[in-house]
Amino acid sequence: MELLNDEFYMRLALNAAAGAAGQTGINPMVGCVVVNDGRIVGIGAHLKRGEGHAEVHALNMAGDNARGAAAYVTLEPCSHHGRTPPCSDRLIREGVKRVVVAAMDPNPAVAGRGLEKLRAAGIDVEVGLLGEQSRKLNEAFNKYIVTGIPFVTIKTALTLDGRIATKTGSSKWITGPAAREAVHTLRHRHNAIMVGVGTVLADDPELTTRLSVPGLHPVRVVVDSMLRIPDHARVLNGEARTIVLTTAQAQAARIEAVQAAGAEVIVCGDGPRVDLRAALEELGKREIGSVLVEGGGVLNGSLLKAGLVDKLMLFYAPKLVGGAAPSGFEFDGPEAMSGALQLENVTIERYGGDWCVTGYPAAGREG
Amino acid sequence: MELLNDEFYMRLALNAAAGAAGQTGINPMVGCVVVNDGRIVGIGAHLKRGEGHAEVHALNMAGDNARGAAAYVTLEPCSHHGRTPPCSDRLIREGVKRVVVAAMDPNPAVAGRGLEKLRAAGIDVEVGLLGEQSRKLNEAFNKYIVTGIPFVTIKTALTLDGRIATKTGSSKWITGPAAREAVHTLRHRHNAIMVGVGTVLADDPELTTRLSVPGLHPVRVVVDSMLRIPDHARVLNGEARTIVLTTAQAQAARIEAVQAAGAEVIVCGDGPRVDLRAALEELGKREIGSVLVEGGGVLNGSLLKAGLVDKLMLFYAPKLVGGAAPSGFEFDGPEAMSGALQLENVTIERYGGDWCVTGYPAAGREG
Amino acid sequence: MELLNDEFYMRLALNAAAGAAGQTGINPMVGCVVVNDGRIVGIGAHLKRGEGHAEVHALNMAGDNARGAAAYVTLEPCSHHGRTPPCSDRLIREGVKRVVVAAMDPNPAVAGRGLEKLRAAGIDVEVGLLGEQSRKLNEAFNKYIVTGIPFVTIKTALTLDGRIATKTGSSKWITGPAAREAVHTLRHRHNAIMVGVGTVLADDPELTTRLSVPGLHPVRVVVDSMLRIPDHARVLNGEARTIVLTTAQAQAARIEAVQAAGAEVIVCGDGPRVDLRAALEELGKREIGSVLVEGGGVLNGSLLKAGLVDKLMLFYAPKLVGGAAPSGFEFDGPEAMSGALQLENVTIERYGGDWCVTGYPAAGREG
Amino acid sequence: MELLNDEFYMRLALNAAAGAAGQTGINPMVGCVVVNDGRIVGIGAHLKRGEGHAEVHALNMAGDNARGAAAYVTLEPCSHHGRTPPCSDRLIREGVKRVVVAAMDPNPAVAGRGLEKLRAAGIDVEVGLLGEQSRKLNEAFNKYIVTGIPFVTIKTALTLDGRIATKTGSSKWITGPAAREAVHTLRHRHNAIMVGVGTVLADDPELTTRLSVPGLHPVRVVVDSMLRIPDHARVLNGEARTIVLTTAQAQAARIEAVQAAGAEVIVCGDGPRVDLRAALEELGKREIGSVLVEGGGVLNGSLLKAGLVDKLMLFYAPKLVGGAAPSGFEFDGPEAMSGALQLENVTIERYGGDWCVTGYPAAGREG
Ligand SMILES: [Zn+2]
Ligand SMILES: [Zn+2]
Ligand SMILES: [Zn+2]
Ligand SMILES: [Zn+2]
Repeated sequence: MELLNDEFYMRLALNAAAGAAGQTGINPMVGCVVVNDGRIVGIGAHLKRGEGHAEVHALNMAGDNARGAAAYVTLEPCSHHGRTPPCSDRLIREGVKRVVVAAMDPNPAVAGRGLEKLRAAGIDVEVGLLGEQSRKLNEAFNKYIVTGIPFVTIKTALTLDGRIATKTGSSKWITGPAAREAVHTLRHRHNAIMVGVGTVLADDPELTTRLSVPGLHPVRVVVDSMLRIPDHARVLNGEARTIVLTTAQAQAARIEAVQAAGAEVIVCGDGPRVDLRAALEELGKREIGSVLVEGGGVLNGSLLKAGLVDKLMLFYAPKLVGGAAPSGFEFDGPEAMSGALQLENVTIERYGGDWCVTGYPAAGREG
Repeated sequence: MELLNDEFYMRLALNAAAGAAGQTGINPMVGCVVVNDGRIVGIGAHLKRGEGHAEVHALNMAGDNARGAAAYVTLEPCSHHGRTPPCSDRLIREGVKRVVVAAMDPNPAVAGRGLEKLRAAGIDVEVGLLGEQSRKLNEAFNKYIVTGIPFVTIKTALTLDGRIATKTGSSKWITGPAAREAVHTLRHRHNAIMVGVGTVLADDPELTTRLSVPGLHPVRVVVDSMLRIPDHARVLNGEARTIVLTTAQAQAARIEAVQAAGAEVIVCGDGPRVDLRAALEELGKREIGSVLVEGGGVLNGSLLKAGLVDKLMLFYAPKLVGGAAPSGFEFDGPEAMSGALQLENVTIERYGGDWCVTGYPAAGREG
Repeated sequence: MELLNDEFYMRLALNAAAGAAGQTGINPMVGCVVVNDGRIVGIGAHLKRGEGHAEVHALNMAGDNARGAAAYVTLEPCSHHGRTPPCSDRLIREGVKRVVVAAMDPNPAVAGRGLEKLRAAGIDVEVGLLGEQSRKLNEAFNKYIVTGIPFVTIKTALTLDGRIATKTGSSKWITGPAAREAVHTLRHRHNAIMVGVGTVLADDPELTTRLSVPGLHPVRVVVDSMLRIPDHARVLNGEARTIVLTTAQAQAARIEAVQAAGAEVIVCGDGPRVDLRAALEELGKREIGSVLVEGGGVLNGSLLKAGLVDKLMLFYAPKLVGGAAPSGFEFDGPEAMSGALQLENVTIERYGGDWCVTGYPAAGREG
Repeated sequence: MELLNDEFYMRLALNAAAGAAGQTGINPMVGCVVVNDGRIVGIGAHLKRGEGHAEVHALNMAGDNARGAAAYVTLEPCSHHGRTPPCSDRLIREGVKRVVVAAMDPNPAVAGRGLEKLRAAGIDVEVGLLGEQSRKLNEAFNKYIVTGIPFVTIKTALTLDGRIATKTGSSKWITGPAAREAVHTLRHRHNAIMVGVGTVLADDPELTTRLSVPGLHPVRVVVDSMLRIPDHARVLNGEARTIVLTTAQAQAARIEAVQAAGAEVIVCGDGPRVDLRAALEELGKREIGSVLVEGGGVLNGSLLKAGLVDKLMLFYAPKLVGGAAPSGFEFDGPEAMSGALQLENVTIERYGGDWCVTGYPAAGREG
């Protein structure tokens, strides 16, 4: 039995926040529970960028019951006029008397201002309850808001020998239904999905989210230095927005053709290969805060080598396909094993007969 | 990682429902999540009797986004005009196209009507997803709505030898802080709390909910055949509503005095002892759907003997106080061990150094 | 996979030791594994008092392979001539070069002498590996060897209300088959089983060990101040040794009759009730190092009150039988709840639909 | 608390058997516990090929106490005169009256004969208790005794991308201390360890068992078609027996040189590469019943391709080294992913920061 205390309400707010994973765009997931004299009077979560913040939904539900209430918010209430008016003002105006916050705004430039405003209005403010959970929930947002560069997660399905296809390129399917359902859930929860043009040429994937329930389609991003993408590639169909990253070496006619096919083309550098750091910055400018990289090995390797990867989610199937098959990570690796790229905070979860190894690149070990 | 599917949304709805435990009076806990094309657009829970149902809160939050959406509701939407208009009508009016329901309305007289209405309107309706969880959540409601008699849970703190106090009546404290916090959480989650007058005379308890956060106070019910309750008993202070159950043998002057002290007096039968079945019916009529019985042993025993107990939650501390101390269950027990009152579906949870044994009396074994 | 290291061998020795639970009388359970150059060459356990110690069995199995070997022993090898020659001498004579010991001999008077001998002979000696497990295994021995008084464990089957029978004395059965199998396993593992004469009069138990495999029968001890035990009580049958504890107030004729029926009679004090401390000392003198007390409530209570109980194992069944039924612990308890007898190191194990609460009386809290 | 029953004794026998893992050569691990009237009188395990069987050790310890006893044996007692007289005869001669066997002799040609003999002598025989555990314990023996071909386990340390070294061949260390301790434990538990000559040339390993305690050294087997092994390779030192597998194409002078260096040379086929099936047969003839293959990728791949692998134990470290690094499994893999070599009965165990994926090749999926 869960006991009734501050943690109970904050867990409820975190639950509501987590429910909206994938649908808040570059905004954080935030939940709010408003409690007046022993009774929850409002629950809310931030559901869509540009629309109500969690506090607003919860306070709307609360109505007059907000007066004198306590608000449990998983992230510091905003203090600036953005697409919506500041939540700290709203909390003050509604007469909330206590605000419990899980985590501060990660942006050092603004962190604390919302709390200051609340405190200045005489509200009792507490910070830190279940803060770790809140920060984990918004790991992507926490990077993007500070750097402008999206949080990059490499997801790949691998055989036990680290391969993403057979020697002929056959890759359907490495993992089973449960792991594939997890991957589509990941698509739903990211702003963009990125592949190399090789994957487009080999598999002609649609790169949309296909689940037993409707899912959100991330922006499809193709890394294509030479604009080899076929005009009739499925990734250019109208099911979702598509961005093709290329270089100044691409032919203008190809650029026009790809644009005509419905994609945005972004020129990233004038070298022979897409400047991936610049590319991520461009994606960041276009309000893409999280990118799920779905291979192949060259793109994975280039991103790792460039130190641009924040997280890896590797779905292993208990299979072997042999050394001639393409690797999941093509990059010029270290000479000494001590120089290998190391993952930290590794967890393993099973999905049917497969399992996912999740980890975060250790700082200062890239290539 | 939780996968995105119907269960994900229904769990979210169940979570929201469970958050409101204790604050819906005789109404069930219900949660609702509205999802439109891959995006949660509304979350709601029933928060207070007489105010918005879960569907209403969720649809209000959803606004125009409800059109074409799927609604996940933990209990069959209502179809009758009660204190609020029927939710099935509202779901139809808002243009929801799919409704997933965890559990049917337990009332056989009305069960299925809400679903029929929805289906008649062309809505795709599914029933049963996480139904067991929903029914467990509303075990009290499920009895009350059908019988009009409150769901009775005996809660008591016991020593290892089944005692609720020492031989002198000392009972502070048997269990430690965690178990006591659990008990106060239970008070918050029940409509009424019932004690015998012996407990009032011995301990003069206030019988309110005292937690680290504000809690709701249940109605205080004292079983007092002879109206021995002192006029200045704390249970008669104004902190919460109080009902005193007595018999026709009580003196009229005492009845007036107790009423004057602020309590409602209900005469239950003309015998020497309160007719407990009649008493529970009276409480049911007063919209008390769940009763937490906090002893002592005579009251516990009488309720058990009369077959009026639905659940027991026994908090044990690792202590012994000896045979002369008062028992938690004073009733005329069986002659043969095979006739003992048996509990089913027993679970054990630890609370600090103590533990709670929860079980349900097996049918047909009373006294 | 278990890694091969010192712990691996010591765990194996502990396993062998634990297998002999119940069959070593007042001797400790001890296991020994002898390992020569990567190969186990001997395994042994102490199997019966007066016969080979664990080291002897293991060294016998090892033969010439003991030379140069390492011996893992769960208890400090003995250094004195008892019923068998000292094991430390044998280890030296066999040419063992390393001895790893889990726990020292608990007897402060002799502890360390075995190790000194080994060290003086140039053997590499290490102490403490898995020492806690070894001490736990021999908790009874550890008390008896130091005090001469047996380790007393109260075992009782209880209802949720702390009763050991119905109001009529019916007690068959409180718990189910799994719990009863556990109880017979406990009998096998104790030197003696103790009941009050009331239990003999009420149930006429045989007090033998009845399992799906043959078990050892503990000495049956009846506490019977007035020698009310019937001459034809089953406990006086020839299935096992029987001791009847009485007082100087018992009639000489009754003493003779009980002796004639095959039991030993021990007079413990001249008061109206058996002097339990004296009784335990007498049992200790008769080489009884562990006593399993199987009730009833008066005996349990008297032992607790006298501070003579080392451990309690309480098997609860999810049943209630009411306040008129006999309690498991009849003693004059404390006035204040803070004076209750408190158990420490409490664990809970399930046995079928029942469960066992095991704990140790906290020091300095008796009566 | 473990209950006293047949399973208790059989578990004890299995524990003793498992303790001897690695030291019984091509013989199975077997444990035996002899119990007479509630008392264990003998414990034994098979400790070394050519020396006493488990039953013999246990019966020796039991002495006269074997008469009328029950014997729990983890494998059907032998009935034929091998290096030692048949255990079934000994059990009969000692007067054992009941024999409980976990698993039958896996050799269909002799299975059941031991039991028949016992039954013919009037002994009560039961088979199957904890049989699955016994069979799992002897998975290697169970293959070898029937086929004459050793049980082959591939063990390799891998990066997340399936590499066994960096692009320069650096492989010290992929995994951390706990995983390496596991690998040395595996060496102790196998009859032979096999590597390709490439590994010898690259790393000059000693291929002995190095643990915190002494371990047994398996026979070192080098697969070396052209006899490129250097005369001063560490694997040719005298620390353990060494076998070099080669082909008829090897120069006679090289064969003599390698023999002179202390190794046995076995010519396996006249092709350009060692005929691995023939090689395993030769090893089997030399009483090698289990082989731990420690790479590298070419040898692993060849064995897999030839369908000669029984089990894989893959130790993963959370590291990436890139696509140019050598793979753990160099073989000509399938064209379609559906043709991949699939593992069954997959388990995952953590070792410090690393983990081991263990599985068994699914039948009929090779190459
Ligand atoms: Zn805001
Ligand atoms: Zn409704
Ligand atoms: Zn000894
Ligand atoms: Zn044999």
